Amino acid sequence: MNFEEKQISSRNIFKGRVVDLYVDDVELPDGTLSRREYIKHSGGAAVLFIREDSVALVRQYRYAYGEETYEIPAGKLDPGEDPERAALRELTEETGFRASACRHLADIYPTPGYTDEVIFIYLVTEAEFVGEHLDEGEFLNCSYFTIDEFGKMVESGKIKDAKTVIAYYKYMDKRNKGLI
Amino acid sequence: MNFEEKQISSRNIFKGRVVDLYVDDVELPDGTLSRREYIKHSGGAAVLFIREDSVALVRQYRYAYGEETYEIPAGKLDPGEDPERAALRELTEETGFRASACRHLADIYPTPGYTDEVIFIYLVTEAEFVGEHLDEGEFLNCSYFTIDEFGKMVESGKIKDAKTVIAYYKYMDKRNKGLI
Repeated sequence: MNFEEKQISSRNIFKGRVVDLYVDDVELPDGTLSRREYIKHSGGAAVLFIREDSVALVRQYRYAYGEETYEIPAGKLDPGEDPERAALRELTEETGFRASACRHLADIYPTPGYTDEVIFIYLVTEAEFVGEHLDEGEFLNCSYFTIDEFGKMVESGKIKDAKTVIAYYKYMDKRNKGLI
Repeated sequence: MNFEEKQISSRNIFKGRVVDLYVDDVELPDGTLSRREYIKHSGGAAVLFIREDSVALVRQYRYAYGEETYEIPAGKLDPGEDPERAALRELTEETGFRASACRHLADIYPTPGYTDEVIFIYLVTEAEFVGEHLDEGEFLNCSYFTIDEFGKMVESGKIKDAKTVIAYYKYMDKRNKGLI
């Protein structure tokens, strides 16, 4: 059975710096009408950066949760930007390390009920220090944890950020299989 | 260093069935002003349901992506609803199986830059069939895959949904440690 929902009309409710909100009228598979509310997002790029068996984690305040989190370096794609290029850009901005190459770890759909965001996750293991380049108004702190410490933070639930949890498991999976 | 961002004012831009959008003026740690755009969400509950070494996956159309996905059974919390109760409710609605108990696997922040959603993920291994109870306007199909098949779908990237990927790895991790 085909579950496709056909667009009848589309309305842009809000156009922001991060979030564009749309409300569409759609036709469901049985011909009835419904509405879909969703965010159009340019996509995210994230980097698991491992250097001398240490993982770079960024501590930052997440306003929506009202708390500080530990996450791998990440950011929003500029419109039309290549995800790999965006990942390497964010790595330099947030950690001060510049890399020329990365490996693909995963693409994820963070919460498919109301966003079209794809988060592209990469692995970087070789990079040189060139100094941090934080965006204006960006407050964060990068620190390093052993892979063992990182694993404990994921497994205990201290780290809840989806891209960071998935980066950890995808990396460990590949490492255990000798692919890395 | 404390990175807290203080709310100056908050504006509700849109109040929908799934998504409430807010734009807040905030004071950054250095005293400058900025804006935060974010979704207030009642939270999600999801269930990894394993029965006779098979995993229940729900195939459904995700309008924002314009494609069908495979995900573990899940849904939105009713306001104030207990996440565990919501997870068991969604399990019955989408698979037709009723369970009286579940185990906590993980809480995740799907995309912390612009939502306050928490997705609560549980494991159910014992349930009885009582018949499906889909919500009106809900079109989906539940089918069963061996854990090995499920693992291949996650590892190959065929499954990109964050909660489903994390449920797989958290389960395998606990199983490999003999905790399940």
